[in-house]
Order: sequence, then C-alpha cells, then structure tokens
Amino acid sequence: MALNRDGMERKTVDLLLRDCAAIPMDQLGRVLERVDIAIDGDRIVALGQDLPYVGRQTLDGRDHVALPGLVNAHMHECLTRGLCEDRELSRWLTEICFPLDAAYTPADITAAAGMNQLEMIRSGTTTFIDIYRHPAAAAAVTEQSGLRGIFSPQVIDEPTGVGEALADTENLIQAWHGRGSGRIHIWVGLHAPYSCHPESFTQGSELAQKYGVGLHTHLAETRWEVETLQARYGMTPVQCLERWGCLTSRTLAAHCVQVQPEEIDLLQAKGVRIAHNPSSNLKLASGIAPVLQWLRQGIPVGLGTDSILSNNNLDLFEEMRLAVFLQRLTSGDGAALPAEQALWMATRGSAACLGLEQEIGSLEVGKKADVILLDLRAPHLWPRLQGSLNNLIAQVVYAAHGSDVSTTICDGKILMHNRQVLTLPEEELRHQVGSQATDLCRRAGL
Amino acid sequence: MALNRDGMERKTVDLLLRDCAAIPMDQLGRVLERVDIAIDGDRIVALGQDLPYVGRQTLDGRDHVALPGLVNAHMHECLTRGLCEDRELSRWLTEICFPLDAAYTPADITAAAGMNQLEMIRSGTTTFIDIYRHPAAAAAVTEQSGLRGIFSPQVIDEPTGVGEALADTENLIQAWHGRGSGRIHIWVGLHAPYSCHPESFTQGSELAQKYGVGLHTHLAETRWEVETLQARYGMTPVQCLERWGCLTSRTLAAHCVQVQPEEIDLLQAKGVRIAHNPSSNLKLASGIAPVLQWLRQGIPVGLGTDSILSNNNLDLFEEMRLAVFLQRLTSGDGAALPAEQALWMATRGSAACLGLEQEIGSLEVGKKADVILLDLRAPHLWPRLQGSLNNLIAQVVYAAHGSDVSTTICDGKILMHNRQVLTLPEEELRHQVGSQATDLCRRAGL
Repeated sequence: MALNRDGMERKTVDLLLRDCAAIPMDQLGRVLERVDIAIDGDRIVALGQDLPYVGRQTLDGRDHVALPGLVNAHMHECLTRGLCEDRELSRWLTEICFPLDAAYTPADITAAAGMNQLEMIRSGTTTFIDIYRHPAAAAAVTEQSGLRGIFSPQVIDEPTGVGEALADTENLIQAWHGRGSGRIHIWVGLHAPYSCHPESFTQGSELAQKYGVGLHTHLAETRWEVETLQARYGMTPVQCLERWGCLTSRTLAAHCVQVQPEEIDLLQAKGVRIAHNPSSNLKLASGIAPVLQWLRQGIPVGLGTDSILSNNNLDLFEEMRLAVFLQRLTSGDGAALPAEQALWMATRGSAACLGLEQEIGSLEVGKKADVILLDLRAPHLWPRLQGSLNNLIAQVVYAAHGSDVSTTICDGKILMHNRQVLTLPEEELRHQVGSQATDLCRRAGL
Repeated sequence: MALNRDGMERKTVDLLLRDCAAIPMDQLGRVLERVDIAIDGDRIVALGQDLPYVGRQTLDGRDHVALPGLVNAHMHECLTRGLCEDRELSRWLTEICFPLDAAYTPADITAAAGMNQLEMIRSGTTTFIDIYRHPAAAAAVTEQSGLRGIFSPQVIDEPTGVGEALADTENLIQAWHGRGSGRIHIWVGLHAPYSCHPESFTQGSELAQKYGVGLHTHLAETRWEVETLQARYGMTPVQCLERWGCLTSRTLAAHCVQVQPEEIDLLQAKGVRIAHNPSSNLKLASGIAPVLQWLRQGIPVGLGTDSILSNNNLDLFEEMRLAVFLQRLTSGDGAALPAEQALWMATRGSAACLGLEQEIGSLEVGKKADVILLDLRAPHLWPRLQGSLNNLIAQVVYAAHGSDVSTTICDGKILMHNRQVLTLPEEELRHQVGSQATDLCRRAGL
C-alpha cells in the first residue's frame, strides 16, 4: 500500500500503464479514450480510468493505444527469407524448400527462432504456434525471448520423409509442455493429408487426445492438394481428415482455401478451428479462402502469417488489412469484413484457435498480461479523432504496421520498450543469423 | 579538390553516400553489393566502388541499401483517415466523401499536405502526383517539404460540382509550374468520365496541349462506371475518352480495372499511361486490374496509393507487394510479376507515368539525386545473403515497409535522416492536423 498525493490509499502493482487509449477486445469494436492498466505478476488486475494503483514500474501511455498482444495462428520458424523467389511452385518446392528442409540442424533452428521471435516481439505478436523442425531448439529460445509459443513438430512421411517423428513428439510433450512458466506448449503437428500417411494422422490424433493437447495441420491449401487426394483416396482433404479421425475440436487447420460449402458445414459441426493466411495464399497463388462463410457459420477463425518463405514477414497488421481486402474482393461489398472483425481474428479468434481463449486475446481483468502499445504519433496514424468520430480501430487495421508497436508485454514482462527488445541480443543475433543462414544454404547445395 | 590519405586527388561534392548496397534500377534486377554515390547540387554525378570524391557531407551507407526514391503515380492529399469506414460504397460517398469534399478550405489542404508529405518522406516516396482540391495550398507545402510534386486540380461537374475550375488550372500553371527549383509541376486534372462533362475533357485536353503538360484522370475504376457510361453515352469509359480527344500520350489514367482486351489495345496504341492502385482497388471492392496484360503490351505502368481514404496509408512498399500478390492470384502462377518488376513499377514505371523518365526513377549519373536508404539491420530484413544468393530485391518488395527507410533525399537535399524529418515540423504539425481535421468534420456535418 502507498498513499497518493490526495491521501487516498493506493495498491502497489508490478506494472502500471497510465493514460493510454485502449481497444480491449472484450467486446467487438469497443474503444476506450483514456485508461490505466494495472498488471501484477503475469495477470491484468485492473483496467479503468484513474486507477487507485501505484506501479513498481510505470509506463506513460499518452499518445499510445493499448491492444491485446496479437496472436499468430500459423507460422513456421525458418532461417532463410527472400531466397530464390518467384519460381513456379513445384520448382520452388523441389529446388529450394526440400533441400533446405533436409539440411536444417538444431543450430539453424536456434538462429531462426532468434530472428523470428525478435520480429514477432517488434511487430506486436505475443503468442504464436510454430509447425516445423527441431522444436526443442525453438522452445529454448522462447524461454529466453519471453513470448508465448506452441510448438507442433512437423511430421512428414512423403515425398521427402524429412520431418519430426511422432515418437519424439511424445518425448517433447513430457519434456517441454508447460515450461517457461506455462508459456511453452507442445502440440501434435502433421504436415498435411497429402504428405502424411493415414496412420500418422490416426496416431497423432490419439496422441493429442492422450495428453489433452491440440493437433495442427495444413488442410485444403491448393487445388493440387484436392486433386491429388481425390486421385489417391477418392476423397477431398477434409473427407480424409474425417475418415482418419482428425476432424475434432482439438484440430487447428491452416489455410482451408479449397473447401466446398458442405465441407465448411462439416468443419463447423466437428468444432475444427481455422487459421487464415492471406499473404501466403496470394504469394503462393493458392486462392482466396471463403472467410466470410466460415465466420457466418461461427467457426473460430484466427490469422496467421505462415513462414517468412511465403509472406515474407511476420507482421500480423498486414494480415489483418489483407484479410479485409480479400473478402471485399470476393463479395464485391465495400462493407464486408469490417476492421473490428479483422482485429478480432488476430486476437480473440487466434486465441480460440490455440485453445487459449480463457487466458489471452483481450485486455480483461484476470487474463494474462499480454499487452502491446502502439505509438499514435506517426504521421500515417494521424489524425486522431475522438468521441463519435473515433477512428482508432480503422487506423490500427488499415494504416498501421508492426513497426508502430513501441512496447510489447507478454505474461506481465516487458519484452520491448521504445522499440528496444530487452530479452534477446539483437545486434549479436544479426551477425549470427547471417552466417548461419549462409552456412545452411551451402549445406543445402544452393 | 582535396587529397585523400593515399595522396590521390579527390573531387569535392555536396553529398557522398559511402559503402551502401544499391538497387539502381538502371537495369531490371541489378544489385550492387557495395558502392558510393556522389551527389552534387541536385544531380547524381558518380556511382561506383571507392569513388575518388570527398563529400561536404558524407553519410555512412553500411548495412543500408540505396534505391531510387519511390514515385507515387496516383494520390489525393486528404485530411481525414479512418473516418466512418466499412460502409457500402455509395453510402460512403454520399454520406462521408461528398460532404467532406464540399467543406475543404485551403487551410484544410495545407494541413492535409503537411501530413501526407511527411508520410511520403517517411516511407521513401520522393515524387507524387496529387489530384484534389486547392492545389496552390498543397504546392506551397511542397516548396517547404522538398518533395517533387505534380498537382492536377480536380475538376468535377457532377453530381456535386465541387471541384476546381479549368480556368483556375490555367492560372495555376502560369503561377506555379516549375517553381520549387523545378520540383513543382501543374497538370490538368479531370475527375472521371462519369463526373466530368465531355466538353470539360475536350477543353482540358486542349489546355494540356497548349502548355505541354499532362492530363490526369480516373478511368474504368468500377463496373458501376462502365454501366453508367454505357447507359448515358452508349460507350465504355475508354471509348468516351477516345471520342473526347483524351486518349493521348499526355494522359495518365488511374485504375483501369474494368477494361476489355480491345480497350487495352487502344490504350497501348494511343500511348496512354496507367497508374495501378492495388490497395484501393481491393478496399473499395473494385476488382483486380489486368496488370500482366498491360505489361505484356508494353504500356507504361506505375504504382499509386490512392488517397488515405481508400488505402489508408501512402506506403508504396505495401503496394509493390500487393501488386505482385494480386497478379499471382489471377494468373495462378507463383512466378508471375516477379519482385524486380514490382520495384520497376514503383520507380521507372511511375516516373514514365509522370513524364519524368529522363530525370528520375533510377540511380544513374546525370539523373536527379532522388535517393532513399533502407536500414537492413531490422530483423524482418534478415538474413542478408550475398553473391549468387543475393536476396535484396525480394527483401525490399516482400518484407520491407516504409518505416525501414532511414534516409530520404530529393533533388540532392536530405529531407529525412535517421528517421528525423528535417524539412517539416512534425510535432507542431501533429497538433495542427488533429484540430484542423476535427474542425473539417464539424463543418462537413459529420
């Protein structure tokens, strides 16, 4: 307890954000013009105007807006970016991606996770799910970075067979699930119905159920995938997953670009959650996902960046904007998917995708203190209008970038302040990542 | 003349950029790993490794890449952003845009130009064409900001009749064309074939010819426009402009989303130039422009942001990325519109759109010194690979944002260095813009 200057008693908390605007996402579209946010330990303990609290540390929120930390519902932590771009997809996969996949070592993933997690901290993402290789290496970086991460070791049976093994996933769950003060989670990861055998999906689903964890996979990303599975099994990708016992409320499916209306009904009925990746779907020429239909049917929809190979950055602000734009295009309606719904997808929607809707995704008392502050002083976020003209959500979704995030807080800990990342050594990592990436390319024969 | 440490004579120039990488855009896709750029007065006088020059001012270009300043081939300088978004287009126009248009005063445009030009400097745009109201106010801001700007006063005959008059355009040409040491140009601006009368187009074309300036208009932006003109004149928008004598090599047409193959032939045959605005075309649900077809036929194509009402920022890096993504979608080809071609559109292509291809758009000896430096130390631009794996163009187009620009030089003058804008008072303008925008909304009855 402490006394403030007017003699009132004030409770002491670890961290107090003072006088910021806020888009708490407790309700769709709600904006608060000026509030304080009190954080104690890893939780939000109060949110309101002129809170009677004293902070052991206090951040001045004037000219800033507070948002829940963004949640990336689909990504892979990779080490190369911008390499041998603009090739036809099958050539790009066989000439670039497969050789790289095979060459990755834990040291490569340590470097990749350093780069990727730095980028997420710097662009306001506080929680992510990673599906790729050597997850213990990436998880170890997450212990240091302070982010909240789910790791789903990517099992691939064909054509390359280069991936993680389900048996190792079980070991990983035992060794890592719940570490980092509960920030680190392990899920089952199966690459896709065209690249994993039916028995891998069945065993994976059983493993997820045994440990009460989620199952992450790619699903119905391209027309090629639909045709391939039709030819191989006489079923669509969604039908395959149903047959293999993997359409459950534990399942988070990435992409789902090529799904028919009756398949959307099935996904909805089974409680499957979907991660939408607009940049990746365009860059790889996969198509536009029927997001408006998913949302109309009440499917939990989150936003993902996919990897830096197919995006090429991890900026969820871009994905929000693009998610709106693409549904405008398919619907021909300038009012389709309003800005606040895009913001919902990147926060509450993605949190639901990761089974963390009770813990993160909004600024509410009792939830984890995953908070970002955006600096509204940049000219591309002017003018700020107040009252009934309030335009903060539109500024955030249509005009802002990840670089407008000045402060990133996860689990009550400040990971970045005034654009300075506090938990990872940026300058040191830059050189390390550069030489490790060059070395990886050499080992992959590129 | 000065002597360097090895006793060689060195010429003195005003500004020397040392040891930067460069994407000069003299040829498609060319990347230089380490060069110096010597600038004297408003021109580039040398570009190469270890130049024998001494700068009156020297900038350290290590860990940076130099590019030609980006060129925005279509925008309107506006004062509001994020206001009453996500309405169906005709409601948005009648309820928001038309009342705002009518309420604009020169003081509003002064504030708008301050905000818009700050944003362009901060995101690496050095030249733009503006089509909107009170151009003398915007041009006066350009004298101060140091940017290169073309102003085309927007004539509108219907339904509102709120716009500039052709007679005033002639006065403006006489008063302003060539001011700001030649940085300021005046063109004829006609809103669109559905909003301007045929005689306005005919007179506008004559005026442009009389003074040897360009003519800027919107063209075939929406299906509604095509249907409206078919019903009114029995002609498509492109046919209207041909009939009215406005399909010439002086004409820069924005959008052209809804054009048929034979109309593209006609545009090509007449030498018309096109400004592509991917964000705006999506946000307003206009559609995807047939950019690959334009490029195949050799039409000069530039990139524009459109206004902050329909984008909502002026970041040409986003437009480059989105331009690629949209052509991937329509072609289904992951190799369509490679990154270097998008960069060409934002530099050489836009310069050609503005009739300035001899002066700007590339880093070449003898051209104007419009140069930007991007800071490659940000994690989302890692890793930097060299030699045959060089990934700089892909990093710039697919991963960078305007906020990665650290230095902006236009006409040989440094407008921003280390993210500090030197020519406009940012902090002062922020408050001014906020209150002016609030006042504009009040006057417009919003």
